[in-house]
Amino acid sequence: MATSGLGYPHGPILFRTGGCPVTLSAQPFVALAHTLAEASAALIRPLFRTALVVDDKADASPVTVADRDAEQAMRGLIRQAFPDHGIIGEEYGAENPQAEFVWVLDPIDGTGAFITGMPSFGTLIGLCHQGRPFLGVINQPILNERWLGGRGLGTTFNGLPVRTRPCPAVSQAALYTTAVELFHRAEDSAAFERLRQRAHLRRYGCDCYAYGLLALGHADLVCEAGLKLHDYAALAPVVEGAGGRMTDWEGRPLHIGSGDRVLAAGDAAAHADALALLAA
Amino acid sequence: MATSGLGYPHGPILFRTGGCPVTLSAQPFVALAHTLAEASAALIRPLFRTALVVDDKADASPVTVADRDAEQAMRGLIRQAFPDHGIIGEEYGAENPQAEFVWVLDPIDGTGAFITGMPSFGTLIGLCHQGRPFLGVINQPILNERWLGGRGLGTTFNGLPVRTRPCPAVSQAALYTTAVELFHRAEDSAAFERLRQRAHLRRYGCDCYAYGLLALGHADLVCEAGLKLHDYAALAPVVEGAGGRMTDWEGRPLHIGSGDRVLAAGDAAAHADALALLAA
Repeated sequence: MATSGLGYPHGPILFRTGGCPVTLSAQPFVALAHTLAEASAALIRPLFRTALVVDDKADASPVTVADRDAEQAMRGLIRQAFPDHGIIGEEYGAENPQAEFVWVLDPIDGTGAFITGMPSFGTLIGLCHQGRPFLGVINQPILNERWLGGRGLGTTFNGLPVRTRPCPAVSQAALYTTAVELFHRAEDSAAFERLRQRAHLRRYGCDCYAYGLLALGHADLVCEAGLKLHDYAALAPVVEGAGGRMTDWEGRPLHIGSGDRVLAAGDAAAHADALALLAA
Repeated sequence: MATSGLGYPHGPILFRTGGCPVTLSAQPFVALAHTLAEASAALIRPLFRTALVVDDKADASPVTVADRDAEQAMRGLIRQAFPDHGIIGEEYGAENPQAEFVWVLDPIDGTGAFITGMPSFGTLIGLCHQGRPFLGVINQPILNERWLGGRGLGTTFNGLPVRTRPCPAVSQAALYTTAVELFHRAEDSAAFERLRQRAHLRRYGCDCYAYGLLALGHADLVCEAGLKLHDYAALAPVVEGAGGRMTDWEGRPLHIGSGDRVLAAGDAAAHADALALLAA
């Protein structure tokens, strides 16, 4: 059976743990994922397009009270619902990161979009099982758009199933990336340049929203570098559940500890073509 | 009295024509501008996030039936309301472009966004008087957001007055540009690079929407090259009406026949600083 980039086949799955095949679906965690999306949205929405104090973090990335409050609220809800689960968040670090189940939170992916009034940022809520992303939410609180993807669940957009579209080659692909600044290593920049030149259409900006467009079947490739776990953990289940592939630049499944370079594609053929260009 | 980059002071104006000071406000044309926005939105909205045929034009830019139908509809309404006015549109060229009043239309600015399901494109409706933009609309038909700016009118966002925010220097600015590909001339690319490196925050994508964010006071600079008249004619009145400046890279007011390089700023100080960096 063909497996996805996350290392598991699509549809309901026999998942092998300790030698015993057991069914492990993301379904039991979906309700909490929705609750986290709603709780964070309620805190973020009133602050959109207001005069917020923006702090620069040590890495010069911006952060606001919206990021901090939303993450704190989500952490509280997770602790209450699943006290034995771990949590890794962008703003407040790791608690119990060795747990079997670890939630990975980015309260505002695309803070630069958020603080400039652009509704393309998203709240990212991922759940990893044994280090592998297996449930993910992209929530856009201003447009009221929510993608949810998970093992055994497929991907939904505001509750309706969505699928990626066919794209046989990079030369026919609509390619997204957030910013050229992501490719700060010379070799990454050169590799991305090969992909960029071959793509049919190039679009910039969007952060997590680009992966949502890919899951909807409106874009074909997203290629980025310089990402952290909280940037990609929630995205992989959304992309894969919609029929796409999301891996590192070597084609390996993403997991806690993957490198900072990711490639998402709606079609496995475009994914393979893009991997070859990145490696050329 | 201080004049704006469009060559006229803010607020109700004495506009000098043929030696006689006369009041010429954009007000008589506002109703038609709204009608054009609504008519184009009604045609574009149902096609968003559908499987559209995308044609590549001679310059490789994409176009769809939504672009074409929306422009045709707007042209018909203008001919009906003001038969002696000229029209210049992205898809169907110029009719009577030497007229005293010329409407400048871009049915979908950001077709790349439109065809990938990203609601940051906009319908641009500009009106030039004696070659100078003096009324402009940015309409986002999916988010139902409309900016309208004009001589003697200020700028409104969904009917409410908006103002740009202070920004004394590029080093404190949130800078937008749509794509690095815009700077196809080596000297433009080098000039933009000086600006990009100095800016506090850099964001990509967004097309016309970035100018709307600037008018709302959430972004500070937009710098682009490779633009055409239909890309900037509607934007200048929106930016200027909100208190900003929008000129070419030499600081000259925009008009029919300006070059392809534009700089918009919410604050005249950041505008001057950015001009100096571009020229350095």
